[in-house]
Amino acid sequence: MIPQQLIARKRDGYALSRQELEGLLKGYLRGDVGDDQMAAFLMAVFFRGLDDSELEMLVDVMLRSGDVLVRGRAAGPRVDKHSTGGVGDKVSIVLAPLAAEMGMVVPMMSGRSLGHTGGTLDKLESIPGFRTDISLERFNTILESVGCAMIGQTEEIAPLDRRLYALRDVTATVPSLPLITASIMSKKLAECLDGLVLDVKVGSGAFLSRIEDARKLARAMVGVGRARGLAVTAVLSAMDRPLGHSVGNALEVREAVACLAGEGPDELRHLVAELGGEMALSAGLVLTLEEGRRRAADVLAGGGALERFRRLVKAQGGTLGFSQDDFGLPVAPMTRAVTANRGGIVSRIDPRALGYGVIPMGGGRTRQDQDIDPRVGFELCTRVGDQVSRGDPLAIVHGASPDDLFVGARVLEDAVEVADRLGDDPLPLVLERVVGG
Amino acid sequence: MIPQQLIARKRDGYALSRQELEGLLKGYLRGDVGDDQMAAFLMAVFFRGLDDSELEMLVDVMLRSGDVLVRGRAAGPRVDKHSTGGVGDKVSIVLAPLAAEMGMVVPMMSGRSLGHTGGTLDKLESIPGFRTDISLERFNTILESVGCAMIGQTEEIAPLDRRLYALRDVTATVPSLPLITASIMSKKLAECLDGLVLDVKVGSGAFLSRIEDARKLARAMVGVGRARGLAVTAVLSAMDRPLGHSVGNALEVREAVACLAGEGPDELRHLVAELGGEMALSAGLVLTLEEGRRRAADVLAGGGALERFRRLVKAQGGTLGFSQDDFGLPVAPMTRAVTANRGGIVSRIDPRALGYGVIPMGGGRTRQDQDIDPRVGFELCTRVGDQVSRGDPLAIVHGASPDDLFVGARVLEDAVEVADRLGDDPLPLVLERVVGG
Repeated sequence: MIPQQLIARKRDGYALSRQELEGLLKGYLRGDVGDDQMAAFLMAVFFRGLDDSELEMLVDVMLRSGDVLVRGRAAGPRVDKHSTGGVGDKVSIVLAPLAAEMGMVVPMMSGRSLGHTGGTLDKLESIPGFRTDISLERFNTILESVGCAMIGQTEEIAPLDRRLYALRDVTATVPSLPLITASIMSKKLAECLDGLVLDVKVGSGAFLSRIEDARKLARAMVGVGRARGLAVTAVLSAMDRPLGHSVGNALEVREAVACLAGEGPDELRHLVAELGGEMALSAGLVLTLEEGRRRAADVLAGGGALERFRRLVKAQGGTLGFSQDDFGLPVAPMTRAVTANRGGIVSRIDPRALGYGVIPMGGGRTRQDQDIDPRVGFELCTRVGDQVSRGDPLAIVHGASPDDLFVGARVLEDAVEVADRLGDDPLPLVLERVVGG
Repeated sequence: MIPQQLIARKRDGYALSRQELEGLLKGYLRGDVGDDQMAAFLMAVFFRGLDDSELEMLVDVMLRSGDVLVRGRAAGPRVDKHSTGGVGDKVSIVLAPLAAEMGMVVPMMSGRSLGHTGGTLDKLESIPGFRTDISLERFNTILESVGCAMIGQTEEIAPLDRRLYALRDVTATVPSLPLITASIMSKKLAECLDGLVLDVKVGSGAFLSRIEDARKLARAMVGVGRARGLAVTAVLSAMDRPLGHSVGNALEVREAVACLAGEGPDELRHLVAELGGEMALSAGLVLTLEEGRRRAADVLAGGGALERFRRLVKAQGGTLGFSQDDFGLPVAPMTRAVTANRGGIVSRIDPRALGYGVIPMGGGRTRQDQDIDPRVGFELCTRVGDQVSRGDPLAIVHGASPDDLFVGARVLEDAVEVADRLGDDPLPLVLERVVGG
C-alpha cells in the first residue's frame, strides 16, 4: 500500500476498493500513514465524496478501532436519539427519561458545545454535582436501574473517529457529508442499539441550512445504519429559529425540567413527542408513528418522565431542587430586558446570532478546552409571528457582569427583528421524515 | 491568522489576500502551521488553483525563505535553461558549455532522475570524479574561469520549496500547475539571472501530454518571471519520442559529447541550437532568434563548446578521455540487440516505457534515496518513420547482468513498434514558443 497512490486515486475521482481504504485507515492507526497524508486524503474526500461502499468501510474501521458499549442486564429495546446540533436544543434532556419511562433503554452518548451550537454534556453539567464522566460499569448499572444514562464519548469508543475529527478540525475538512455521516454513525453504532432516531436540523441556525443538503445527510446516515441492520429513522426539524425560549446551559435545563413537568414551550413539547414517538416506533413498542406520538405525549403529561429524570440526576451525582422555582440551578447574578423599539410583528429570531452570542458571555466556546459559565444566556419572551407594541419585552439577558448585559443586549437587538410583516415563512417544526437510505 | 480559516477559503474557491497567503506560508516555516494543515491546503490548491497574485506571493515567500546565488565577478549576461523533464534529454550538458562559449555566464542548478524522467546531475556524475556538490564559492570561481558551472539545488536555496516539494511528494499534490510553476520559478529566480529559457516538454513521455496544458504551464512560468523583470521565454518541444538515440546516464553523456563535437543525432543538435538561440536572444547578444540559432550552430560546429566542456569537467573534478571512443565513461559489461520481427515502418518509440524501463536495470529511481548504475540503458538504432526489414537491429540494451538484458529486451519489444504505416504524426521538434504570460 503506497498512501500517495491511494490519495491520488481519490483526488482523481475514483472510488477506493474496500481493501485499499481499509489499508489506508489501518495504516493511519498504525502510524504508517502520516497526519499530512490523511489530511490530503480528507481534503480530496471533501471534493470527491465517498461512495456507499467506501462510506461503509470507513464506518466499519472507525467502529472496530475501539470498544463498543456492551449490553448490560437492562431489559427493553436499546434506543437513542442524535441531533446534528442546534441552538436551544434541550430535547435530549427531556427525551432520555421520557423514552425510559416508555419502556426503552437509552444509553445516550452526547457531545459538548462548540461554536454556535450547544452540547448536552455542558447543559447537564450545569446541574450541581452532575457527572458525565462516569465509568462504563457505572453507566450500565444506571441504565439497569433508571433505564437511561448520559455520558460523553469515551476514549475507548471509535478512537479513529476521535483522531480524524481532531485532524479535520484543524484542516478545514469538517463540512463533508460522508465524513460527518461516518463520524456520527460510528459512534451511534458503538452503542449497540436496536433503534435510532436522528434529528437533522435545517435552517440558518443549523450546520446545513438547505433542506436538500439536510435530506442528503439524513439519507446517508439512515443508509449506513440500515445496511447494518439498525432500525434508524431521520426527522428533519426546523432550526431557522431557536428551539424553545431559552439559550444558555442552566436556562435550558430549567426549560427541560419544565417540559418534563408538562409545561414549557409548545414547540419543545411537540418535538419531544415527535421524536419520542419515532423512538418507540423504531423500538417496536408501537405500530404507528401516531400511536408513538400519543404515547409520548401521555407519558410526558403523566409526570412519570419527570420522576425518571429525578432518579437519573441522583444516579449521576447531581442535585436539583425540584420544588424550587429555579430548581436549585446556578442563576446569573443580573439580568436585563431588551424591549421593542417599535410596534409590529416579530419577523425573525436569528438562532446563529444567539448561539454565537453566548460565547463572549462565557456560555459557549470556540475551542474544546475552554470552560463554560452555565448561568449566562438568553430568555426569549416572544416568538416569531408574535404581535408586539413599542416597549414590550422581547427577551432577557442573563449575565455574570454588566459587560455581559451590555454585550448580550447588543446581540439581542440584532437577533430579534420587529417589522411590519413576517419575512420568510417560518419552517414547519417537523419538515419531513427519512426512513430509507 | 487561523490556518483552518485560510484553508477553508481556498477550499471554497476564494483567493487569499497577499497578507493571508504570506501569513500561512511564514507560519508553516515557523512551525505554527502543521504539515497536516499545509497538506490540506495544497490539496485544496490542486482543486482550486492559485490566481496570479497568489502565485507571485508563493514564489516570493519561497525565494525569500533562503539565499540566492550571488553574482560573482564572472563577466557577461547570466542565462540558464530549464527543462520540465523528459526521456533522453541531455540538452543541458551540451547547452551550458555552448552558451558559455557564446559569451554567456551559465549558473546551472539541475535535478536528479525520478520516475521515468532523467536528471542532469545523475548524468554528469557518470563522468568519473565529477562532483556536483561543490561549494557556492567554488561554483562562483568556476563560473568566472569557465563561464558555466553545474550544481544541484543546495540546502540554502528556497528551503520552503524543498519542504513543500517533499510534502507534495507524499500527499499526491505534485501535479498542480501553479505549484509546479512556483517550484520551478523560485529556484530559477534564486539564480539571479538576466535571461531564462524554459523547455516545456509535450507528449506521452512528458509530465504534460497535451499541448494545451503545456502552454498553460509555459504561460504561467513566463508570467511569473516577467513580473519580476526577468527576460524569460518558453519553448514547447516534442516528447512523444525520446530525444536523441540514447537513454541511460553514461550513454547520454557520450551522446552529449558527440553533439559537442558537432556529431550525434540531428534532433539533439537542432534543439540545442534552438534553445541556445533563445538564450542568446534573452541575453541580448543577438537581435533575432534566427541569428541566435545560427550563432549557436556555428559555435557548436567550431569545436569551441567542446573545449569549454573539457574545462568544465576538469574544474568540477571529472576525468574524460576525449580521444577514446567511449570517452572513458563507465561501460556496461554486456549488450544485446533487439531486432525487428517483421518488416515495416517504425511507427512509435514510447519514451515513457523506455524511461521506466531503465529503472529495473538500476539506471533510474522511484525514490530520491536510491543509487543509480550509470552504465545501463538503451541505444536506439532507428527513429520514428524509418523503414526496417525483418531482422534489422532496432535498439541495443546495455546491461550489468543477463537479467538486465532480458528485462531490457522486453521493454524494447514493447516500446519500439514496427507497423505498416506511421501511427499519429510525430510532433514537430519545436511546437511553439511562449514569450508572454
